[in-house]
Amino acid sequence: MIKAAIIGDGYTAADLLRLLAGREEVQVEIICSTENIGRKINQVYPHLTGFYDVTLTTADLQEIKASCQVAFLALPHGLSVPMVQELVAGGVRCIDLGADFRLKDAAVYEKYYEKVHGAPHLLAEAAYGLPELYREEIRHTSIVANPGCYPTSSILPLAPLLRSGVLDSQGIIIDSKSGVTGAGRTPQPSSHFCEVNEGIKAYGVGVHRHTPEIAQELSLAAGTEVEVVFTPHLVPMNRGILSTIYARLRRGAKPSDVRRVLEEFYGSEPFVRILPEGVFPHTKWVYGTNFLDIGVHVNESSGQVILVSALDNLTKGASGQAIQNLNIMFGWPETRGLFFPGVHP
Amino acid sequence: MIKAAIIGDGYTAADLLRLLAGREEVQVEIICSTENIGRKINQVYPHLTGFYDVTLTTADLQEIKASCQVAFLALPHGLSVPMVQELVAGGVRCIDLGADFRLKDAAVYEKYYEKVHGAPHLLAEAAYGLPELYREEIRHTSIVANPGCYPTSSILPLAPLLRSGVLDSQGIIIDSKSGVTGAGRTPQPSSHFCEVNEGIKAYGVGVHRHTPEIAQELSLAAGTEVEVVFTPHLVPMNRGILSTIYARLRRGAKPSDVRRVLEEFYGSEPFVRILPEGVFPHTKWVYGTNFLDIGVHVNESSGQVILVSALDNLTKGASGQAIQNLNIMFGWPETRGLFFPGVHP
Amino acid sequence: MIKAAIIGDGYTAADLLRLLAGREEVQVEIICSTENIGRKINQVYPHLTGFYDVTLTTADLQEIKASCQVAFLALPHGLSVPMVQELVAGGVRCIDLGADFRLKDAAVYEKYYEKVHGAPHLLAEAAYGLPELYREEIRHTSIVANPGCYPTSSILPLAPLLRSGVLDSQGIIIDSKSGVTGAGRTPQPSSHFCEVNEGIKAYGVGVHRHTPEIAQELSLAAGTEVEVVFTPHLVPMNRGILSTIYARLRRGAKPSDVRRVLEEFYGSEPFVRILPEGVFPHTKWVYGTNFLDIGVHVNESSGQVILVSALDNLTKGASGQAIQNLNIMFGWPETRGLFFPGVHP
Amino acid sequence: MIKAAIIGDGYTAADLLRLLAGREEVQVEIICSTENIGRKINQVYPHLTGFYDVTLTTADLQEIKASCQVAFLALPHGLSVPMVQELVAGGVRCIDLGADFRLKDAAVYEKYYEKVHGAPHLLAEAAYGLPELYREEIRHTSIVANPGCYPTSSILPLAPLLRSGVLDSQGIIIDSKSGVTGAGRTPQPSSHFCEVNEGIKAYGVGVHRHTPEIAQELSLAAGTEVEVVFTPHLVPMNRGILSTIYARLRRGAKPSDVRRVLEEFYGSEPFVRILPEGVFPHTKWVYGTNFLDIGVHVNESSGQVILVSALDNLTKGASGQAIQNLNIMFGWPETRGLFFPGVHP
Repeated sequence: MIKAAIIGDGYTAADLLRLLAGREEVQVEIICSTENIGRKINQVYPHLTGFYDVTLTTADLQEIKASCQVAFLALPHGLSVPMVQELVAGGVRCIDLGADFRLKDAAVYEKYYEKVHGAPHLLAEAAYGLPELYREEIRHTSIVANPGCYPTSSILPLAPLLRSGVLDSQGIIIDSKSGVTGAGRTPQPSSHFCEVNEGIKAYGVGVHRHTPEIAQELSLAAGTEVEVVFTPHLVPMNRGILSTIYARLRRGAKPSDVRRVLEEFYGSEPFVRILPEGVFPHTKWVYGTNFLDIGVHVNESSGQVILVSALDNLTKGASGQAIQNLNIMFGWPETRGLFFPGVHP
Repeated sequence: MIKAAIIGDGYTAADLLRLLAGREEVQVEIICSTENIGRKINQVYPHLTGFYDVTLTTADLQEIKASCQVAFLALPHGLSVPMVQELVAGGVRCIDLGADFRLKDAAVYEKYYEKVHGAPHLLAEAAYGLPELYREEIRHTSIVANPGCYPTSSILPLAPLLRSGVLDSQGIIIDSKSGVTGAGRTPQPSSHFCEVNEGIKAYGVGVHRHTPEIAQELSLAAGTEVEVVFTPHLVPMNRGILSTIYARLRRGAKPSDVRRVLEEFYGSEPFVRILPEGVFPHTKWVYGTNFLDIGVHVNESSGQVILVSALDNLTKGASGQAIQNLNIMFGWPETRGLFFPGVHP
Repeated sequence: MIKAAIIGDGYTAADLLRLLAGREEVQVEIICSTENIGRKINQVYPHLTGFYDVTLTTADLQEIKASCQVAFLALPHGLSVPMVQELVAGGVRCIDLGADFRLKDAAVYEKYYEKVHGAPHLLAEAAYGLPELYREEIRHTSIVANPGCYPTSSILPLAPLLRSGVLDSQGIIIDSKSGVTGAGRTPQPSSHFCEVNEGIKAYGVGVHRHTPEIAQELSLAAGTEVEVVFTPHLVPMNRGILSTIYARLRRGAKPSDVRRVLEEFYGSEPFVRILPEGVFPHTKWVYGTNFLDIGVHVNESSGQVILVSALDNLTKGASGQAIQNLNIMFGWPETRGLFFPGVHP
Repeated sequence: MIKAAIIGDGYTAADLLRLLAGREEVQVEIICSTENIGRKINQVYPHLTGFYDVTLTTADLQEIKASCQVAFLALPHGLSVPMVQELVAGGVRCIDLGADFRLKDAAVYEKYYEKVHGAPHLLAEAAYGLPELYREEIRHTSIVANPGCYPTSSILPLAPLLRSGVLDSQGIIIDSKSGVTGAGRTPQPSSHFCEVNEGIKAYGVGVHRHTPEIAQELSLAAGTEVEVVFTPHLVPMNRGILSTIYARLRRGAKPSDVRRVLEEFYGSEPFVRILPEGVFPHTKWVYGTNFLDIGVHVNESSGQVILVSALDNLTKGASGQAIQNLNIMFGWPETRGLFFPGVHP
């Protein structure tokens, strides 16, 4: 059994705790907070009553190094860098659910996050935590940069198709729709119930921070610079991201190649489900789970490709994927604690 | 044409502005804010774009006295008292949407609102702004204490029945369910989308501040001290209050008296609709409107009476009722600007 | 005063009745139904209680011809054709909220609606009821083909830009998100509360019937054949459509042309609001209203244009637009009964 | 390992399948349907993709008797009686999620369900499947009458208090609020998204079929005839029931007795959580789980008691409780497959 620390007590921390409850190989030893120090975790999250007896503490890296083998960091960007640096030096493997280690180019990080990166030398060491693409790197790294929720929903459908040259690498448009948990737990006007309920809006149009993360991974897959247009939207629901992705068949590719490549690439993956012809995903089908569902449409005459993906932003888009990475890092079956159907309806 | 000031820029202010848009007899001259000073009202509320060209200002009572005939106060409790005192002295009639002038007994106010009342001598002067009960007082007063949303939904169904002796005045239970706008516009954990959506809870169990306001008015109607049990609940919707009211037939009263008394009392009221036998209200039927719908059930053998009322907490429960009071105060037809069906569905 | 018939009793009929309540120039004389014959309209729609005293009847065209000057048809496709034919012959002007007269090419209609058009000779006579584009035709026609909700949200932002040559006419992608009222009032699995709530999905991917309607109008605006990719989504809310539109600046056009053309074209239109730079619409801002809001983003380096539009699918997307057309046809001020702010929040 | 049949394919069937996925002791061998015969279960419920490979069949009792040791019946009332009779005779233990075996008095069943009971002699044999009250009966029976969702939420908070004489057995009022899954999967106007979303209503006022079931169990607990007033409400959410229960301290009981009795009675129960003083339950805290949370308020001066309970109507209110009963019947640990925290938020 290993011991784990969770640094942060927002919604991704809560989902980590849900997924780790009852796991025999992992014990959550420490949960760090800034606003809830001294409270029991089940006072902060009453749905966890009966599962944990942990009191939230301020982040004490010495103590984590002394007692834990792994740390999950679920923090606003910028805060993870110094912590990861110290924890890794102390032998604690880190899974960072924030943005600090996702971008390989510190200059891009600096541009989008308006912050100098404090440890750029660690960027090369960090594995981008998409198991379906980087399983081996994850197995051996001490720093996992757990992907963003929008990037996960965008990269998994596209990467195999760009890698195999089925899609044109230019002109890709990703129109994503997210539930409100993606905006975190801190109350603010844009996530006030009355402002969200019974309406939909776009936000971050042309400037969202997940754009370079998506572009980085698609470029790596395509072997050439890929630019994407990415527009997120806020939907009146708690969980789920649906990404509708528009791309074009590359000259020479056959319409049937799209489905064939995806089915081959994901055929033995436990958490990616390619839906049958004519079936498109619903975020409800993956609610609370680690699955990513993909629907495929190709217009045979025009070569227009539409991919629709669905995931739960807190699970496959964050904490579930983090647990999947944890399983890989520690040599446990990758599906351990994650392979269950969603709550439906 | 008169000129009006609105002091406050929360949701009840927004609903006042919706209802006053296009009114020929009233011009909103001043809107006061603390957090949005210097912004145009349509920057704060883009849905009002095209209807007002008012810049929000700090509350300047001198200016209001100089230019306005009426002021709506939509403020947290305690803040209205000094303002109303000064405005009324300056000849401005005041409609207070807050709690400061609703309780006739300053000691009760002090107990529930934990604040000494700064102008108890004005309490007698203030009319409780339920037009169906106090139309004449409202017509002649310079201070209207606009009722709370829960009290409106509770008092209107019960008062005529207590007044006429049809119901037992003891053992009344009011179980109310409210949309989230009732909690105001300020973001806080309890109205964060993710915490409200897809769930329901009770709050203020046994201690809610609207209890003494309800008890005061029911006691006046019954001519004897009435105690009530009142439990509010938070429902994942923006607008609407449904109150399910449990009472008992008074010895000697006939089951049919309940419906008869209500139909007689409200027969010529424009905004109270007694629904047919077997039909119970839905908050959707009054969405955005000034109506209060009442459904009636009497168990003939046990004498148990169940009344179900529905209103829109921002309209008949706040701003619509305030406009109704305004119409009465200034001698306009009471339904002016208020008699329209709701947005449905 | 004219007399009107409404043929159909679904949600668009309900919204017509909401908007016509209290109108002095129009009296709703007849409401036709198939499932609710013999019931009062306020039994079917209790929110209309107090506004109408009409009993639903089967559609009797003789009676409509004898008593009405205008008929609104709110019917499934295919059913309007014979009725419109007879009514127009009898001197009744028709506003068809269905799809039967929108497509100018009967062959396209036949392909998408899988039905032979029964009166193709009337197609040329029918005006496409987008007042901002066809005001004069509407004024003089006896048949208005009231546009679809998705097409209204797509055509209004794009048509002026295609007409003026600012946008490339190829590669336009329209990603639309709609509330559930767009699916009508008949219960079915796909609009069952439990299947829609707390989730989002795409539907009709690549095959939705509104595609040719959009393409027709954009082609007319561009003066050349325009193909569009249109993907609708179902959002857990009642009302509202948000369309996120992706297009590219035409070679030679300046980024600033986009906003300039839209502001000029819609500068004096009462119901189209071009939002300020950096502001993107929210469907809540147009809730229950006849407004269409448009937000504009142009990437200056790539020439990528993103337009985001919002409307209420039942109002500007159906019944409000129908009333706007009615006002034009009968020479009343175009904003009569329609110029009010929405219910918010 | 035992084999199970599930007769019915509605939402409770789906929740059974969610909870049984991955269970080693139980294999779902047969799923019976009337509308989806011949379809794979993951075509009907795509969220189950990857977990079951079962094709839905018509109910063939011979086959069930030949291959299964247990059958779950999730059917409209009246349909279970003949099936249970035959299955039990064939040695198949039955867990009936419908109403057919809950009422001990066939005459009451007949009155409320308007149907003659086909096998009244089996009523005595059936155990009422509330493990916290009837664990031993459940262990040994071949027919479990799985309780209704509203009754579970009402009986568990009240039964220990009535049994111990802490509460007055008269004047109990239960005001319940339920999500829409309680109304089942069949589309109908009252569960159409647009009619439910953004509103709340009462239904079945004074006449709901769960009333006699609640009264029966409370009477058994109190040792005297208990009448209850029960009013259900429909809340715009999928899952969850919140019951607000009003009762009075019995003469001689102390206010502190209420909490004491509940904490003693449920102290070692795995699925009933008595919340701390001042904390009242939220249905979100039990979302998708088998927990029942109870909050307690006693007004010391008036003796008014308010109990608030929350459960997930499909889980502790139906399928989770059925699995709990299954575990008891077959001698497995009672929490097997059921002890996990909910999806939150």
